[in-house]
Amino acid sequence: MTQSRRSQTRRGPDPERYHEIVGAAAEIFRQKGYSATSIQDIADAVGILKGSLYHYVRSKEDFLYTIIKDATEAALREIQTVARMEAGAVHRLVAFVHAHVRFATGHLTAYSIRLREMRRLSPDRRGKIRADGEAYNKVMQDILVQGQEQGVFDAGMDVELMTTILLGQLNAVTRWYREGGPYTPEQLADVFAGTVLSAVVSDRGLGGEGIEELRRRVLTISAGKAAART
Amino acid sequence: MTQSRRSQTRRGPDPERYHEIVGAAAEIFRQKGYSATSIQDIADAVGILKGSLYHYVRSKEDFLYTIIKDATEAALREIQTVARMEAGAVHRLVAFVHAHVRFATGHLTAYSIRLREMRRLSPDRRGKIRADGEAYNKVMQDILVQGQEQGVFDAGMDVELMTTILLGQLNAVTRWYREGGPYTPEQLADVFAGTVLSAVVSDRGLGGEGIEELRRRVLTISAGKAAART
Repeated sequence: MTQSRRSQTRRGPDPERYHEIVGAAAEIFRQKGYSATSIQDIADAVGILKGSLYHYVRSKEDFLYTIIKDATEAALREIQTVARMEAGAVHRLVAFVHAHVRFATGHLTAYSIRLREMRRLSPDRRGKIRADGEAYNKVMQDILVQGQEQGVFDAGMDVELMTTILLGQLNAVTRWYREGGPYTPEQLADVFAGTVLSAVVSDRGLGGEGIEELRRRVLTISAGKAAART
Repeated sequence: MTQSRRSQTRRGPDPERYHEIVGAAAEIFRQKGYSATSIQDIADAVGILKGSLYHYVRSKEDFLYTIIKDATEAALREIQTVARMEAGAVHRLVAFVHAHVRFATGHLTAYSIRLREMRRLSPDRRGKIRADGEAYNKVMQDILVQGQEQGVFDAGMDVELMTTILLGQLNAVTRWYREGGPYTPEQLADVFAGTVLSAVVSDRGLGGEGIEELRRRVLTISAGKAAART
């Protein structure tokens, strides 16, 4: 079925075009901030009449919700592969950090908006997003508890507080990461895996295999920084 | 000289009143975001005519600049006491974390605005703030280099990258800290000192005195969480 046939046979908005408009809206939200962006700005960016945007959305907030919802759901899908991973806590935590950094740097615009503009959503919509966010955090919490049970992570740590602190550290990457910078996302993820693991590891865990392997990788990255991208 | 005498003898705006208005502006910026706040909102909050605000500032951005400049300068003053501290790198890094967390949680509104709304300033003003910000970061970088020279911090770490990561972790506290929460700022600073130190410490540093003391403190905090505020 061709594009023109399709537009004759159905009335709804074109999903591909919608996707494109949402992408443009995200770029503007990230640059100007959500509050300072008008529907007119979005219309201008995609070369469409303002009135035509209302075929796709009822309000500016609809764009924000779509962007944040899609990013949150996609991140949760990625992290669920880590949740299902059958391995020790050290390896699963490293995998978590890698999945998280890969997603945050690979979806920088949408993920930054999710972090910064959440509170501009209506309480109702924020609640829906928050449920997914909690499921996401729960994956890290479960890994920390697993590590405590295995004796490789500090038994005394407050798992909830530590999850908040460590995710805060990982999310801050969205404040300074730029494509083409001195480190690749994979290299950054290795450095982060080091800082995250060292924060939670117990004396017994310190001697473990995963830690030693990671330490070697991080040292290699630091040493090879100059050569990494030249 | 009484307040009324003073207002008769000088024409300029009252500094105390200005301070009060800036505080009100900061509260609104934090709640609504800078872009969504109007001069009218600020006037309403302090019960003043919009026109009268122009005795104090020329634009909304003047408020933002005052808030961010004051917070940045005050933070830098605090951290310079750590910069001047004559002690080993482990103790100075712990002192840095404490000073940082104390400041961020003690000036939550202004410091959050500094982190989130910096880019709303004109390039010129942003440049001035950035210079102070770099002096601030330099204090941590110097401590990390000191620790490398002493052999207590990882010789292979990229000091600039690690500073960015660790300050990102510490600054994220502004996203979730609330007064009256389960932990006091001092307790949080101890937990953060643990995650920060463990991220940079070398094998040799691990056996050191400062680390052992810190570990005991962090464990005590976690164990005593329930009792801490009851």
